[in-house]
Formats: sequence, structure tokens, C-alpha cells
Amino acid sequence: MKSTLIDKNRTYGLLEKYKLVRKWTESICSPLQIEDYVVQPIEDVSPPKWHLGHTTWFFETFVLAPFFPGYKPYDAKFDYVFNSYYETVGSRIIRTDRGNLSRPSVSEVYQYRQYIDSHIKQLFGDTSADNALLDILELGINHEQQHQELLYMDIKYILGHNPLFPAYSHKPVFDEIEVSEGKKLRFSAGIHWIGFESDNFCFDNELGRHQVYLDAFEIAPYPVSNADFMEFIKDGGYHDFRLWHAAGWDWVNRNSAKAPLYWQFVDGQWMQYGLNGLQEIILKEPVCHVNYYEAAAFAAWKGERLPTEAEWEVASEQIKWGHRWEWTESAYLPYPGFKKAPGAIGEYNGKFMVNQMVLRGASVATPKGHSRKTYRNFFQTDQRWQFAGIRLAKEI
Amino acid sequence: MKSTLIDKNRTYGLLEKYKLVRKWTESICSPLQIEDYVVQPIEDVSPPKWHLGHTTWFFETFVLAPFFPGYKPYDAKFDYVFNSYYETVGSRIIRTDRGNLSRPSVSEVYQYRQYIDSHIKQLFGDTSADNALLDILELGINHEQQHQELLYMDIKYILGHNPLFPAYSHKPVFDEIEVSEGKKLRFSAGIHWIGFESDNFCFDNELGRHQVYLDAFEIAPYPVSNADFMEFIKDGGYHDFRLWHAAGWDWVNRNSAKAPLYWQFVDGQWMQYGLNGLQEIILKEPVCHVNYYEAAAFAAWKGERLPTEAEWEVASEQIKWGHRWEWTESAYLPYPGFKKAPGAIGEYNGKFMVNQMVLRGASVATPKGHSRKTYRNFFQTDQRWQFAGIRLAKEI
Amino acid sequence: MKSTLIDKNRTYGLLEKYKLVRKWTESICSPLQIEDYVVQPIEDVSPPKWHLGHTTWFFETFVLAPFFPGYKPYDAKFDYVFNSYYETVGSRIIRTDRGNLSRPSVSEVYQYRQYIDSHIKQLFGDTSADNALLDILELGINHEQQHQELLYMDIKYILGHNPLFPAYSHKPVFDEIEVSEGKKLRFSAGIHWIGFESDNFCFDNELGRHQVYLDAFEIAPYPVSNADFMEFIKDGGYHDFRLWHAAGWDWVNRNSAKAPLYWQFVDGQWMQYGLNGLQEIILKEPVCHVNYYEAAAFAAWKGERLPTEAEWEVASEQIKWGHRWEWTESAYLPYPGFKKAPGAIGEYNGKFMVNQMVLRGASVATPKGHSRKTYRNFFQTDQRWQFAGIRLAKEI
Amino acid sequence: MKSTLIDKNRTYGLLEKYKLVRKWTESICSPLQIEDYVVQPIEDVSPPKWHLGHTTWFFETFVLAPFFPGYKPYDAKFDYVFNSYYETVGSRIIRTDRGNLSRPSVSEVYQYRQYIDSHIKQLFGDTSADNALLDILELGINHEQQHQELLYMDIKYILGHNPLFPAYSHKPVFDEIEVSEGKKLRFSAGIHWIGFESDNFCFDNELGRHQVYLDAFEIAPYPVSNADFMEFIKDGGYHDFRLWHAAGWDWVNRNSAKAPLYWQFVDGQWMQYGLNGLQEIILKEPVCHVNYYEAAAFAAWKGERLPTEAEWEVASEQIKWGHRWEWTESAYLPYPGFKKAPGAIGEYNGKFMVNQMVLRGASVATPKGHSRKTYRNFFQTDQRWQFAGIRLAKEI
Repeated sequence: MKSTLIDKNRTYGLLEKYKLVRKWTESICSPLQIEDYVVQPIEDVSPPKWHLGHTTWFFETFVLAPFFPGYKPYDAKFDYVFNSYYETVGSRIIRTDRGNLSRPSVSEVYQYRQYIDSHIKQLFGDTSADNALLDILELGINHEQQHQELLYMDIKYILGHNPLFPAYSHKPVFDEIEVSEGKKLRFSAGIHWIGFESDNFCFDNELGRHQVYLDAFEIAPYPVSNADFMEFIKDGGYHDFRLWHAAGWDWVNRNSAKAPLYWQFVDGQWMQYGLNGLQEIILKEPVCHVNYYEAAAFAAWKGERLPTEAEWEVASEQIKWGHRWEWTESAYLPYPGFKKAPGAIGEYNGKFMVNQMVLRGASVATPKGHSRKTYRNFFQTDQRWQFAGIRLAKEI
Repeated sequence: MKSTLIDKNRTYGLLEKYKLVRKWTESICSPLQIEDYVVQPIEDVSPPKWHLGHTTWFFETFVLAPFFPGYKPYDAKFDYVFNSYYETVGSRIIRTDRGNLSRPSVSEVYQYRQYIDSHIKQLFGDTSADNALLDILELGINHEQQHQELLYMDIKYILGHNPLFPAYSHKPVFDEIEVSEGKKLRFSAGIHWIGFESDNFCFDNELGRHQVYLDAFEIAPYPVSNADFMEFIKDGGYHDFRLWHAAGWDWVNRNSAKAPLYWQFVDGQWMQYGLNGLQEIILKEPVCHVNYYEAAAFAAWKGERLPTEAEWEVASEQIKWGHRWEWTESAYLPYPGFKKAPGAIGEYNGKFMVNQMVLRGASVATPKGHSRKTYRNFFQTDQRWQFAGIRLAKEI
Repeated sequence: MKSTLIDKNRTYGLLEKYKLVRKWTESICSPLQIEDYVVQPIEDVSPPKWHLGHTTWFFETFVLAPFFPGYKPYDAKFDYVFNSYYETVGSRIIRTDRGNLSRPSVSEVYQYRQYIDSHIKQLFGDTSADNALLDILELGINHEQQHQELLYMDIKYILGHNPLFPAYSHKPVFDEIEVSEGKKLRFSAGIHWIGFESDNFCFDNELGRHQVYLDAFEIAPYPVSNADFMEFIKDGGYHDFRLWHAAGWDWVNRNSAKAPLYWQFVDGQWMQYGLNGLQEIILKEPVCHVNYYEAAAFAAWKGERLPTEAEWEVASEQIKWGHRWEWTESAYLPYPGFKKAPGAIGEYNGKFMVNQMVLRGASVATPKGHSRKTYRNFFQTDQRWQFAGIRLAKEI
Repeated sequence: MKSTLIDKNRTYGLLEKYKLVRKWTESICSPLQIEDYVVQPIEDVSPPKWHLGHTTWFFETFVLAPFFPGYKPYDAKFDYVFNSYYETVGSRIIRTDRGNLSRPSVSEVYQYRQYIDSHIKQLFGDTSADNALLDILELGINHEQQHQELLYMDIKYILGHNPLFPAYSHKPVFDEIEVSEGKKLRFSAGIHWIGFESDNFCFDNELGRHQVYLDAFEIAPYPVSNADFMEFIKDGGYHDFRLWHAAGWDWVNRNSAKAPLYWQFVDGQWMQYGLNGLQEIILKEPVCHVNYYEAAAFAAWKGERLPTEAEWEVASEQIKWGHRWEWTESAYLPYPGFKKAPGAIGEYNGKFMVNQMVLRGASVATPKGHSRKTYRNFFQTDQRWQFAGIRLAKEI
């Protein structure tokens, strides 16, 4: 971590970043109708209004309340409404109840944002801050960037599960790539360093940087395409238990799973809901919205496997990544030397290190500047609403 | 039922009533914010937006589609979104999903209402209609009046379960009464006629009119007050299993029930959420928002019982009623000679005649002109969000 | 109720009956293997071992503990294991857990029975008892007879849901009848007395005897046959929502119901599991193991309805009954003047008077001497494991 | 894997082992009463009768059916009853239903065992077999040994959750140790080989043998004692969310967890159910029956962590192990080069490699000769009925 000296340039830079990030969050929401801000169709998906409030609450609770002299909370009850999971900070609304709250209204949430923004500008605008405080501000900014991706995920879920299939936008929202076949990349056996290494920001779970021994392996230069995955479906992949984990096979049967999330079989053809509405599937794009079970079953069908997160990181500079989060064969566990921060901030990552799998890379929905090769994303094995795809690897 | 002759006066009268009722529904919603129209905190409570659409869909489906020459539906998908439970009419969104739908938007639902209203006015405005069609129109009007009461119930639930306890209005919404003690009214044993008797509108479940033999009984002239019910609580009513049905006792324990819905114990005092916000309990008002189990347990604590629906109807002209729906000791079952109408309209009442109890009277939230002494309301035994209270009776 | 005078003949008679009934319970269990005594495949079905113990516990708790001078309980923990639902008497094992108990063993339960039997014989054998005590003894005997029928029901469920379909016996267990068509019996409108009337034993729910007014009705002399019900199935009865209550239709879909319980479609033919094993359905026998929803749907398909319990009782001397419990159109509610006994005995019937329907008559599994025309049996509307059938009625 | 040559000595040795192992399974069950063989108190716990049948079915299905000339199955329906999870082999009874089956009876299951045993002896007794067949026989023997430990686990659960707390035996069943403090063992950083290496039997999940890089670490020579764990309880360990994973904290609250499984607070003192009945806790014995969440929370409370499975294996020759399965910080995932066997045997381990944690070592309930340092046991993170304890480690 950084020293606690006063740092003028860093203060200025972070405040500028703060303003840009806060504005971008609101840009993401600008095409929404008021009604879209409110609903929570499943427990994992939060109402957009809640994201707007929760990211703001983070700055209020961890920056303003302790550091702004004489700070007066916007509304004491918001603590209860917008806390997500910080046990340290007090009781909170249970996650499944977020979609029951019509109030505070959307416009009041925007007022809350303005109130916090103006205090943050006041706190950091006319003076420089010490590094300990700037560390929390920077964490808050990165936290809000994570929720920007969650906003895209949740908006897509809300609109994509509405029987009217409304479009979020009529213009392209994301930059996509075309998958090429490409030759497998080969890496020989040996010791590698992995984990974050620099003075810049990273999440606690990217540390400590440490060595791993890897056997020789090969890895695909591109993620798996929609065309590839359609082959898997046509070949009966969702009907062959031998390809699946036992828990995955249960998931298939309980949900009658037949295709990735948002795929719809309409009049004899596979269509896909995207933020532009229901459209034909583009075969050359990377497959999206598969869970770990589907990713692992696809790899088994190919006679290959998913890369480990260490393999992925070692190969990262030679592969094409950034359009889909990529499931790995690595469970989300602490690195050697991992340390939790004291207090509520320590709840950020460590307490989730069980029964989830690591995803590496970034997706089209990840904010610019928020990705790096050491970033460790994680989801439960049955979740599909994130922009997740598949990359293949195997031992040589 | 009525003949199918053309009836000019009836056409005119019903169209005027249609306009008033449709307008009143929108008046009820006028204090809401857009967000309040959308949420569904529990399965029983529907989003106000859904009520606005569903009552409209009823006129579209049962009046316009079959009888308006060349009628063009507003949006074919609304059939799926706004059907409540009519199996005859096709598939429908499951009840627990209504609160997941941000679209159609509130303003689009209002446009839908206008579209239907203008067609209804066109259909009935310039000519007279035959009685069979008018019967359906009249049913639709009464159906919408039922949903007006549901709107009050659901709005109260939505706002009253929000941690901010927002007020629906700052002016009194309902006319309340003060409960007086009053002497018990006595009725001697004998045969009585019950059920609807006139040419006016009634629901199918109020027929056939028939005779019942009643033993001598006495009945209270007023419903039970908040003060009475507070005595029950203080005397440990919620902790004494002997007062409860077995299923009621399970309900108490599963829900840690301690008081009627909307009662809150704040700083050593019982408060009550009402449409004006969280306020002190007015002791002389009739108790409200109790379920059948609570009503029956209260009566057992008093050494009395609830009246049967026949007793209630026989006594109805001598008791003070109309401020609370009153739980009776009668299960909701068909009267002798009950007949279902053919087709979807036949699904209106008959298919619910099992495992529910009859409530008689009307409540402060019942639209004017929608109550009568033969009206049979019904709810499941654990439901409390309706404006229901208690009246005592016993054998002599 | 009876006076509390000493009654020598009654004492002698009841003790003789006690011995016969206790012995018959054990006869019912005699074909079982030890393993059959232990399992509880669904919550409603109790392990036979539990019935043996619970009926014994009833005598220990309500007769011996209070009335046998210096009585020493067989095992203090049995109170916890064998209490069924008497809240007054203390905590009890939850119903879903009964099948988890391998101990006390079957042989120990039989020892417990002997211990209680010998104390009962000692208490009543050498002297006469007062009527208050004899009333409890008589209730205990009737209680055990009710569990004799439950034993048949539960044994049938346990063996009939085993994939090996073992037979309980290779000889006929019950006397069956053949259904005849017969002419409908007609009753004209008027006032009738119903409810129990004599000095003999009855359950509290058969009182008070009271008058009812009935419209004219007709009723079938025989219950509905398997052949009749097969017509209903062939005509698509389980696929036509118009015949069903809304809750019944949910039940059909949730359970993919296609036929009565124990019917199996094997190699193109309907078979039926009975206590003699899996066998061909005998078309002329009364249909069995249908729930209220199925009974009501069948009646709707015929354009008729189920009789009310008052109609049934009025007609009882002119119809053929006793082979199936017959679902009625009457909810299980207290009669006018119904009184609960004080203490635990008062929990016997009254607390179940909600959300159940009355069945009248008796079945092939009902012990001899345990049926009468005023007997009010009751089950929840979705239950099918009792020996229940259908009789048709309608208004004239 | 081994070649397919004929091997006479191996045939003889395995048959002898087969006989011993089969006999030992029955010895474990010998103190049971018939009733104990039948019940299934929770889904994870199978009836002992089922274990006896399932292990037998394994030999019938994978050895006799394919290799015994003209083999005639004991009972075709047993395939359905005793298949556990092999999708390849056909449909099977769902796991939660095993405790509903009173038949086949215990004595019939023992007859089934004899039938299979006599065929196995015939198949392997008079001739030598090829190695491919011997491999399956050996797998079956090891499979039965795994079920021997499951038998102890399940019997303990069945008797230990009975309100009568019956003892399985009145003599000591297991050899226990006393935990000593001991000095931490230190290992410097470097590359190590892990995984199975020899021609003897191992499970597929112990392969391929491969290299790992480990940072320097220290590890405790003994597992954590009951006294240590009691300190954790006294210090409020079950009430401090900071020590727990988020999922662990949910588990604590949902289950009101306060102590390891089988601990009971009786009259102001912690007691523990063991196979000898309810007894005082022996402070010096290793703590037992904790789940992964509890193990990790305990380690966090100590400021340490659990070892990884690689650290454990590297240290294994210098630590005292074998009395408790030891939770590690490693998720159960395939080793580099892991291969599933073709067919049903391939379902043995691989399909469970998700959302479980590895346990290393062995327990007092593990059969003699069934443990080795490379053995990878695995359970879900909330399970406690296995004989699992805790060992501490940390980075240096």
C-alpha cells in the first residue's frame, strides 16, 4: 500500500477521474424509462436505481462520513436502503427486497448523487489529501466502475426478460470482434510470476504476487464463437450427461437449459436478445452469457479444458481478450500472502473466496481503463447474466 | 339473467357509469409517483400499473373484441401481460412475475386506457345495445370497481412496507366511524331467505336466493375496535395456542405475528401505518387488517364466535356496517342452485369456491354504490392486506 | 355428556372393548416386516410403529398419568416421541421427523403397549370407575380405532410406493361391493334435524344436534364406480380446466395428475395397487383414493355436484354406504352450539375446523362398530391416501 | 494403468482382500437393530441397508454382469434401487427417497450380498483373471471401503439425532490420540512433486503426478484440539462475522450454529454424542465434525489459515495425521493431466470436481489400509457429518 504523505497531483487526477466515472454511470442510465430503474426480476439483478444509490452511498459512508468535517448525511435511512453487504456498517435491506422499493424515487436518487458529488468536490477540490484517504476514493471509483458493468448486465436482464423485448438503444452499444480460428499458442513448462506488480491501483485479491509452476500447455488465441457453440448444441451437447459436472447436469435438467441465456428459438431459427432488441445471431462473434457448467461442458465436448487463471495470465499478452469474461478452471481462492484490509473495506473481496470460479479478461461492458491482465473476476458456477464466454486450453 | 332486447335507457345509464368508474380509477392513482406503479412486494399485491391495464383488458377482451365490428387490438402482446386468471382466454404471465415488468410503461398503459375508452364510447354512444352485451359491460364496470378497492389495498401495502413510510396523501382519504359499545341484537330461531333478489346487477355467487334455518343468535351492533383488540394483545392472545386453529397457530409462529398488519411498536407505543403515513392508533376506530385466524382467535378469547354469513345478512339492516369487511364463520361455497356462466365469464367466481372464507359488508375502500347486503367477498384465511375487521356473535 | 356416577356395567363393557380394539391394532400390523414399521415416505403418512406408540401414549397420558395412583411412566422421553399434536401436553417431535427415528425399536414399542395394557386392566379390572374417567377411556378406544384406519392407509402408501410393490397379504383384506346404477333418490324441501342424538359415544364435532333447511334434492343410491371414473379420464377430464377449481387445476398441473392414487398405466392398461399387490382394476367397484378436487371435477363433468353433509345425513338410511368415505360439498366447520372440552382433549377436533372438507360414511378400512350416519370425517382438499370416493347429487 | 496380462498372484491377493473387506462391512453393521438399517434422516445420510446393497450392486454391475458367463441378476429391480449416481447405467431412485423404502428387507439385502459373494468367489477363485478385470475388482473393493467410513458416519448421524441417544457400542470403537502443542514445522520455498506414484491402486483423482511451486510455509504438527475449539466458542467465534466467509456467515445464521455437530450444551456443560452415547468432551482429542466454514473461521481467529493440499502432502511425513480428515484451502479440481476412465467408471470422481473442498489425511473411521498421503477426499463446504477436523498453517 501507499504511504500517507500528502499528494497534490494524485488528488487532482483522482478527482477528475471521479467526475468522469460518475458522469458515465448516469450516461449508461440515460436511455432508461423511470419504470426500468425500479424492477428486480431475480435476486442477482438489482434495480438500476439501487446501483445509482449504492455507489453513492459507498462514497458517503467510507469517504464523507469519516473525513468531511461536520458532514451531515443526506438521509439517515439510506444507510439501510443502499448498503449491499457490509456487515460492519450495520443492518441492510435483504437483497431479494430491493425490487419492492418504489421510494426513494429515481429523481431523489439523482439528487442524492448530486449532494454527494458536491461534497466530494468540496473535500478534494481546494486542497490535497493524504494517500490513505485517496486510496479509499480510488477504491470507490473502481467500485463504481464495477457497478457500471453490473448496470449493463442488469438492464439487459430486465429488458431481455420482458415479453415486449424493448431495445435499450437503436444504435450499437458495444464494439464487437470477429473470432478467427488461429493457431494454438504453446507455452513450455516452468515457473512464472503472477499477481499485480506496480504502484497503481489494484484490488486486494490480485495480491500477493507470487510464483507458480506450470506444466507445458497450449491455449487458443481467440475465444469460442457463436458458430462453435451452435455446433455443440446441434451435436446434442445439452443432452449428453457425460460432458457435464454432476451439479451442471442437475442445473441443465432443473432449468431445461438448451442454449446460452438470451438465445431464443423463433420460427426455426436461433435469435438473440441484445441491447438493440431481438436479432439474428452473428456467428463470428464470441459466444456470450454461458455459465461455468456450460463452458466446462463445451470444453469437454472438444476434448480440451478451460485454462487455469495462471495459464491465462501467462498467455495474456499473446491472446486476443477483452470482449468476454473468460471462465477459468481455477476456483476463487486467496493468493499466497493475501491480506484483508481492516474494517468494512476488508469485506470487499475476501469473504467471497469460496464456491466461485475465477473469470479473467474483461468484456465489452467493462468500462475503459478498468481492465488489466491480473484482474480476478468471479461468479458462481450457475450464473449467466454476466458477459462471459469460453477459451480453450490443454496440456501438451 | 335479463332478456336480450334492445334497451336504450340502460345503455345510456351504463355508459355514464362506465365513464365515472374509469375516471375514478385514475383518480385513485393520481397521487402516485411513476415508481409506485411498478413494484410487486408480494405475490398477492399487484403493481398499480397492472390493475390499470388488466381492467382495461377486460373490456377489450370481453366487449370490444367480440362485439366491435372490425376491432383492431391495441397490442396483441397485452393479452399475455394483462390476463389475470382466465384460462379460457389463453396463456398469461404468472402472478409472481408482474412486478418484473418495467414495460409497458405507465404512460403507455394510460394510452391503452384511452384507446379502449374511445372505442367503448363509440360502441355504446350512438346506438342502444342489447341486454346480453350490456350485461357484460356492467360486469366489466363492477370488475373495475373491485380493482379500485384492490388498488387501495395494494398501494397501502407498497408504501406501508417501504422503510421510508411515505404518505399516499396528507389529507384524510377515508371516512371512518367511532365504535360504540351498544347492546347485542337478538334474533329468534326460524327460516330466512338469503341471496340476491332484484333485477339489478349482482355477481353470480349471490344466487340462487334460498332459504336457511337459523338457530336463535345475538350479534354485536358494531365491529370490534382497536381498543378491544389491544386488550387481546395485552392479555397474551398471540401467545395462547388454545385460542387458535391449528393452522392459525402455525401461521402465528411462522410469522412471529404479534399484532394486525401495519401495526408497529415504536418507542413503547403501538403505531399504525395508514395512507397518511405512520400515525398513532385511534382506539375507537374498528380494528383493521386482521386475517381469519386472528378474527377467530379474538372471538374465542371473548367466548363468542364470528357470525355465519346467513346470520350477518339477516341482521344486516340493524347493524352498523360498511367500514370493514367482516370475517364470517362461513366457508365460501356455492349457494343452492348456483350456476356458472358459460365461457370465460364463468371463471369469475365459481372456481375459487374452496378453502376461502366469506367476508360480508364493505370497507372504507369499497367504491360508493358497489356494496349491498348480499355481497359475498372472500379471502384466504391467512390474508391481511384487505380492509378486514371483526364482528362478534353467539348462540343464545 | 354423562353424569359422573359410578357405573359398573359400563366399566366392564369398555374394558372388554379396550382389549378387543388393542388386539385388533396389532392384528393389522402382524403381516408387516420390521422395516415396514419404520418409514415415513411423506409427511401425512406416519410409520406404523408410531401409530402403535401414539395410541398407547394417549392412554398413558390421559388415563393412567392422572388417574392411576402412583403411576410411573414407561419412559419419560416417549412423551416427546409419541405426542402428535397436543400443544397442552408439551413439546413434540415435528411430524416430518417421525420417519427418522429407528428407536425406540418395534419390539420396545410392543413392550410399551403391554405395560400400558396391564396398567389399564389393573385400573379398570377390579373395580368400577366413574363416568368422567370412562368417557376418556372410551375416547381413547375410539381414537385407537381411528388410527386403525390410518394404519391401513399408511401401510398401503408405504408398500404401494415401493418400487417392488410388495403385497401386504395374499388373501382379500376388505369386503368390497359392486356398484349398481339404481334410480336417484328424491327428497323434497323442508327442515331436518342433523347431528348426533343418543347417550352413546360420539365425537364432539357431531354436536350440537340442530335443524337445517334443505331445498329439494336428489342423490345417487350408490357411489361412483371405477368404470364411471375411467370414462372421465378417457373423456379428457384431467385436461379440461373448466371442470376444476382453480386450486384443483394447480394441483393437477403441479403433480401431473392423470388418475386416482395407486392407478398405474402398465402396458396399455390401467392397473391398481391394492393390499394384495398390483392388480387389474375391477370396474364395478367404487372408485377410491380421489381427493376433493377430483371428486368435484368428476361431478362437474357429470353436470351434477357432491351432496352437502346435511343432504347426505338425511338420505343416509336409503343409500348404500360404508365402502368409501364420501367427499361432500360441505366445509368442516363447527355445528351451532359446538363446544370444545377443556384441556388437551379439547384439541381433538375443533382446532382443525378450517380449510378442510367433510367426508361422510365409512370405508372398507374403518373398524367395525366405528361408523354411524352422523360421523364427520375431514381431510384437506388435496389428500388422496384415505379410502375416499364420490357420490353424486343435485337440486331438483 | 496396468497391462491386461493374466496375473495369478494379483488375482489371489485381491480375492482374499475382497473377502476381508466384505466381511468387515457386515461387522460394522452387526450392532445395529433392524430398524437402524432403514432410516434416512437427511439427504446426505443413506440407510445402512442401502450401503450394503449399493456396494454389492457395484460388483454385480461392473464385474459380474459383463464378465461372468451367463450371469443371471439377483433381481432386475435392484438396479433401480441401488444405483447411486451412475447416469450411464440407467435410471435410479432419487437420493432423498432412499429412506422411504422398507423393502427389500435387511435379510434380503444380506442374501443379495451372499449371492454376489458366491459368484465373485466362483469367478476369481479357480482361475486367474486379466488385469483389466482385476482393476475393476480392486476399484470395487476400494469403493466398499469408502462406504465403510460412510457407514460409520451415517450410523452416527442416525443414532446421534435420535432423542433417545442410543449407543452403537458400549466399548471403545476407535483409537484416538491426544493432541500435543508441538513446534510448527517449517518448509522453505521451492518446487515439489505431488500426486500418486507407484504401481499400486489409487483413485483417478490422485493423478497425474505433477510439480507445484510452494512459497515458504509453516504447518502445525498436530490437528486442533477440542480445548482449542472451545476457546474459539468462548471468545464469541460463532458471533463475529469478520471471521467467516459470507456463505459461512449465512450458514451460521440459518442454522443457529453454536458448536461442532454432536456437541450439546447440557446443564451448563458441553457434551458430545459419540458411538458410545452422550459423553463428556475429552479436551485433548482433536476437534471433529466441523465444516469448511468453521475450519476457515477458526483459522482466521488464530490469524492463520488452512494448508493447501500441496503443502499438506509435502509435509505429510512429518506431521501426525490419520485421526481426522483435514480441511484444506484447496478446491477440488482436476490435477494437470487428469483423465476420466471411459464409461460408467469415469463417473467416479471427475464429475464432482466443482464447488467442493479437498480434505487430506484419513480419520479414525477410515478402514485400515485405505489411506495414503496422496488421497484426495472432498466434501461440500457446509457438510459436517464426516469425521473432519482442522490443521493450521501459514506463510512464513
